[in-house]
Amino acid sequence: MSVLPKSVEKVIEAFGRLPGVGPKSASRMAYFFLRAPKERAEELAEALVKMKESTVRCSLCQNVADSDPCGICADSSRNGLQICVVEEPLDVVAIESAGIFRGLYFVLGGVISPADGIGPEELRMREFRNRLKDIISGASETRNIEETLEVVVATNPSLEGEATAAYVFDLVKTLRKGLDFEITVSRLARGLPTGADLEYADRTTLKKALEGRTKM
Amino acid sequence: MSVLPKSVEKVIEAFGRLPGVGPKSASRMAYFFLRAPKERAEELAEALVKMKESTVRCSLCQNVADSDPCGICADSSRNGLQICVVEEPLDVVAIESAGIFRGLYFVLGGVISPADGIGPEELRMREFRNRLKDIISGASETRNIEETLEVVVATNPSLEGEATAAYVFDLVKTLRKGLDFEITVSRLARGLPTGADLEYADRTTLKKALEGRTKM
Repeated sequence: MSVLPKSVEKVIEAFGRLPGVGPKSASRMAYFFLRAPKERAEELAEALVKMKESTVRCSLCQNVADSDPCGICADSSRNGLQICVVEEPLDVVAIESAGIFRGLYFVLGGVISPADGIGPEELRMREFRNRLKDIISGASETRNIEETLEVVVATNPSLEGEATAAYVFDLVKTLRKGLDFEITVSRLARGLPTGADLEYADRTTLKKALEGRTKM
Repeated sequence: MSVLPKSVEKVIEAFGRLPGVGPKSASRMAYFFLRAPKERAEELAEALVKMKESTVRCSLCQNVADSDPCGICADSSRNGLQICVVEEPLDVVAIESAGIFRGLYFVLGGVISPADGIGPEELRMREFRNRLKDIISGASETRNIEETLEVVVATNPSLEGEATAAYVFDLVKTLRKGLDFEITVSRLARGLPTGADLEYADRTTLKKALEGRTKM
């Protein structure tokens, strides 16, 4: 005989599938809803279903959005010749919260990770290539012909993120060939994070911080 | 303009209310469902609503259950004169998984915690008292009059757990007065957990382990 009601076990199972949620946390979450008023459970249930129903993918930046094109891509006050390439939608949220980038985004939908069987084909590289072509032809038609398109690669500073950044760089290099349009590619700076303790910094971070040292 | 679709923010909010889930984890959970097929979100949504609809509280032990009385309370092979008092339903699961206790349970629904404004009135102390009375009168009516009721207090080894255990002890002591029925109260042993390293054990644990030392 199982101690737990079947319906509780099902909720624990469903929570247990979430990233970073072990069986203990999943149990605690289920019991939170058991103790909470019915409305709490209904709230999450409705929000989940509604989220899946109401979100679309922006056809320009591939980010999840309320509308297509999304608010950022539709914002004409943003710099359309700066495109920041990120792994996931949450990266857009993070960069936006810094409040310094005023260009557009492109969400790849992951990173190249041979260990997980994820190659460039599994990411939105084709869509990215097409997006760049559209930007270039759009700019060529208007007065922007003299300007430069900057691709800011903001993948994570991990092995997979670096591999993906290298792939994006190659993609842009190939695209640029024979084009009458300048495209530069940049990468987020590596170094010591704010508030870090030099004493506890790892070797790679220190190496990058030294290599990338700036004049005072 | 918010970067996140409203519907996504709502899901993040709902996950953020869960115990031990910060804003970052809540965001990751929401994005897990954004990326996963629709069925995953529906699965959790349905399981949550169904759980709230289909579970009842056992009127005997106050545990969440499929039926009233619950499977444990209805199991006549269990020792009805041993009652283990726990804080929460998950504690029943933990003790049952040890597979050694064959008595009944009583779920208090929390611990006495003045800091959180939780006194004995906020717990199921009245129900506990009535449960004990019922057990005693039931036993008195049958052949069990000569037997002893054992209350095993299994609240957590925390300040609040100890305060609650003391309250339970007093409650039983008061109830026992003038009764022709023996009730003993025991408490789970304190000491070194299996696999612990004596060198790293905290002072309180070591103190309890010494005080509770057993003859070899």
